[in-house]
Amino acid sequence: MKIYQKQIKLPAFKRGFHLVTSYIENEFEQLRNIDQGLLQVFIQHTSASLTINENADPSVRTDFASHFNQMVPEDAPYYQHTMEGPDDMPAHLKASLLDSGLIIPITRGRLNLGTWQGIYLCEHRDNGGSRKIVLTAIGE
Amino acid sequence: MKIYQKQIKLPAFKRGFHLVTSYIENEFEQLRNIDQGLLQVFIQHTSASLTINENADPSVRTDFASHFNQMVPEDAPYYQHTMEGPDDMPAHLKASLLDSGLIIPITRGRLNLGTWQGIYLCEHRDNGGSRKIVLTAIGE
Amino acid sequence: MKIYQKQIKLPAFKRGFHLVTSYIENEFEQLRNIDQGLLQVFIQHTSASLTINENADPSVRTDFASHFNQMVPEDAPYYQHTMEGPDDMPAHLKASLLDSGLIIPITRGRLNLGTWQGIYLCEHRDNGGSRKIVLTAIGE
Repeated sequence: MKIYQKQIKLPAFKRGFHLVTSYIENEFEQLRNIDQGLLQVFIQHTSASLTINENADPSVRTDFASHFNQMVPEDAPYYQHTMEGPDDMPAHLKASLLDSGLIIPITRGRLNLGTWQGIYLCEHRDNGGSRKIVLTAIGE
Repeated sequence: MKIYQKQIKLPAFKRGFHLVTSYIENEFEQLRNIDQGLLQVFIQHTSASLTINENADPSVRTDFASHFNQMVPEDAPYYQHTMEGPDDMPAHLKASLLDSGLIIPITRGRLNLGTWQGIYLCEHRDNGGSRKIVLTAIGE
Repeated sequence: MKIYQKQIKLPAFKRGFHLVTSYIENEFEQLRNIDQGLLQVFIQHTSASLTINENADPSVRTDFASHFNQMVPEDAPYYQHTMEGPDDMPAHLKASLLDSGLIIPITRGRLNLGTWQGIYLCEHRDNGGSRKIVLTAIGE
């Protein structure tokens, strides 16, 4: 059994939902040494998050942004945590509705995603900057 | 330390929330060889998902369907991804609000779920068909 | 490679969102024996859940409570599962919108959380009582 761990930084993305599957695969070559295992992708932030969804049509990512902006609005009358700007409290809520950590099976050295699955970086701040990710792979 | 991995297909379920705990336990006998460990259940789709919730009263699963249909409606005016039918974009959103991958502790060869916990297959399409699941168990 | 597993009980918390990071770290000393690995925190209940979010300003946790109460209201007209009180069905829905199990990287014997990240116990019942947690750490 082997374990590999690496911290990476994603480039800064604008607010919205962004496909980062190939970025992660390329940054973590050790994946190829694992025949059967699991990869965890963990984001060390509370105003950006991760999810797995459709990797083909960009309009899916646009609709994610529209729906999350409607479901978790800025300036809700009950927000008390408003000092860091109108996009901050919605960003925290969206982060928890999606995921801080994804686990993906590894099979024969590759992520065993379904045909239409990709990893999304969900950037909930207007100016979130570069985001730190911890990658951990375990298997044999 | 041991690792086991297996792909299975769930039978087709109609749109809604369905208990599949015993189906998964029965399909993956190797669980019984693990005294302490973790099981991952991963769904290789973006319009169906997984969650853990109440395993006793079927009205909980009915209320899940009602609430998710209300929280993520069909035909929202801001959807652009509409070519695959009115149930498609809501299915993608519901899939990310729930989980693509569950992790459950394994203790003495069994899933260490709470008394009232069961695994739900969350089928968000009207005709989703059979769904592919990757099971990975690690432990000793 | 090592694996450690332990069941703990959290003290009873009132309905709302509560920081429990240090409680979990203190209860699970074996974490310090792992140089690289993963910790799973699993809650064995369907009306309380877990998430990772901002660890500094308590108003973030207050706003989580306000937003989840608004997004998943009591007494929705379509609820059928009402026998266990008005806070029960919303508790099940909130539990699945958040997480039953968190995975956190372990690095050099410590949880490798971001600077502002903490573990929240999300108590969705008015009188949920003490909650059972299974901790599993794997690594080397």
